[in-house]
Amino acid sequence: MDCKKFVEEQIAEIKQTVGSATAINALSGGVDSSLVTVLGHRALGEQLKTVFIDNALMREGEPQRVVKTFADMGIPVELVEAQEEFLSALAGLTDPEQKRQAITDTFYAKVFGRLVRESGAKFLLHGTILTDIEETVAGIKRQHNILAQLGIDTKDAYGYSVLEPLKTLRKDGVREVCEFLKLPAEISKRIPFPGPALATRIVGEVTRERLATVRAATAIVEEELGDSDAFQYLAVLLNDRATGIRDNKREFGQIIVVRCIESTDARIATVTELPWYKLQHICERIISEIKGVNRCLYDLTPKPPATIEYI
Amino acid sequence: MDCKKFVEEQIAEIKQTVGSATAINALSGGVDSSLVTVLGHRALGEQLKTVFIDNALMREGEPQRVVKTFADMGIPVELVEAQEEFLSALAGLTDPEQKRQAITDTFYAKVFGRLVRESGAKFLLHGTILTDIEETVAGIKRQHNILAQLGIDTKDAYGYSVLEPLKTLRKDGVREVCEFLKLPAEISKRIPFPGPALATRIVGEVTRERLATVRAATAIVEEELGDSDAFQYLAVLLNDRATGIRDNKREFGQIIVVRCIESTDARIATVTELPWYKLQHICERIISEIKGVNRCLYDLTPKPPATIEYI
Repeated sequence: MDCKKFVEEQIAEIKQTVGSATAINALSGGVDSSLVTVLGHRALGEQLKTVFIDNALMREGEPQRVVKTFADMGIPVELVEAQEEFLSALAGLTDPEQKRQAITDTFYAKVFGRLVRESGAKFLLHGTILTDIEETVAGIKRQHNILAQLGIDTKDAYGYSVLEPLKTLRKDGVREVCEFLKLPAEISKRIPFPGPALATRIVGEVTRERLATVRAATAIVEEELGDSDAFQYLAVLLNDRATGIRDNKREFGQIIVVRCIESTDARIATVTELPWYKLQHICERIISEIKGVNRCLYDLTPKPPATIEYI
Repeated sequence: MDCKKFVEEQIAEIKQTVGSATAINALSGGVDSSLVTVLGHRALGEQLKTVFIDNALMREGEPQRVVKTFADMGIPVELVEAQEEFLSALAGLTDPEQKRQAITDTFYAKVFGRLVRESGAKFLLHGTILTDIEETVAGIKRQHNILAQLGIDTKDAYGYSVLEPLKTLRKDGVREVCEFLKLPAEISKRIPFPGPALATRIVGEVTRERLATVRAATAIVEEELGDSDAFQYLAVLLNDRATGIRDNKREFGQIIVVRCIESTDARIATVTELPWYKLQHICERIISEIKGVNRCLYDLTPKPPATIEYI
């Protein structure tokens, strides 16, 4: 792949399409939206407004870390606090589709929709990649009509444009371009992290307390596997509980699943054959450091038939 | 341990206690109740009536296999069909304590209680081992007052006796005695299997359909790990479901946990470091052979803080 050509063409196209208007994009900190943010700023400079929405579902210290990474590159990112809006939309929901829908609706129709309208921007930059499009066509992902989701109806939509500069790339291509652009390792080497964030790693209801549990497990897994070459590694909090025994008393504890996979583009994945001492150490930390957790399981399932995430 | 002395003493004590009366015992097929059955028959011959209660919770072909193993040793075991009684007692229950209680109540107060009364036996042989007593004292197991559980009240209880010939042994001692007696490997080498049987390996409601799922997974795990030297290996059906992808379609599938442990007496246990090809092969069989299952996890947790079983 000719990265130089790709970057030049996308910058030129963004510039030409947006002209002297203003554009907006939401940065999640993931490699796709990060690359879109960098390409967008190279093309548009201050004409592009980039927001990072704190949805309460991010990892430990993540919103601040992402904003700083971009500030260090001279790209201003506005941190928008929206924790309560997301948590109240998720309260009481246990069905995976309903949870995903609540997050999508809150993100687009409420928070980002409001930001778009307030900004006056008519151009939206979005980090769609080829795999997203393929999975939507295959019925695995739900169709996203971004403008409709933003609450911009067909009539109002006149004049709005969505730009998807990465839509011809898969994940490995995105990384290649990031490396070509010499973006910091926090971006180019960042392991994939889903849009609905830690909510995809909670089976059952998403609450502040359960988020804290899976966030702590995620921090341990990322710390312990940060030096592995795995494609992705994560922790999942199950809704089921299992009997355990602590201080000679019965304890009905929570269960964390550790998942670590090898893949090039997330379409198919195999399970990483981690060394046993590493698995045991991760288990030991999870059951001793996280209150209420007394089981730790390792996911053995390739994709397909399992997906990488749990919901 | 002096096995010869132990066996002689227990047989003598059973003989002396029961005299010319009749006794009864329930055989589960586990090593404890099997040894009690053998000792009891050596002591009492036809004065001991042994029943195997088919509670619908056993493994594939297990009731018939156990009866045949004892028939081959010249010990008659009566197979009592009680599937519906157990399944209707379990219907709708998801709380582990309530499930255990329903099984215990159905076993003692209903099925075995009826058999005891019908038999006229006043002596009950029971396979309690030292670990059971210790865990009851520690509050990990619930107190069992066997006579009360049988619906025999204090007044009626006059004249009833419960004999627990294994109460000074731990699991390894029980096995040693079985080997000394040259009992078939199906008994002496049999991996531990809990009293509430497959119900302890179903998180959530126990139904015929869910029993069939965990029974199929159990058969695969036992087939694949039968030649391992592990202390115990088992499969658990979780109540949670996870998103998967099969034939390019989203699938909300069931999850099986594989557990394999090293232990000498079940009080503490470590996880077996199985070879990866074995874990992958078990996973592959479980997700392809069992309808509706699309995840397979391996339990990394030692006991404590996890127990061996899940409920």
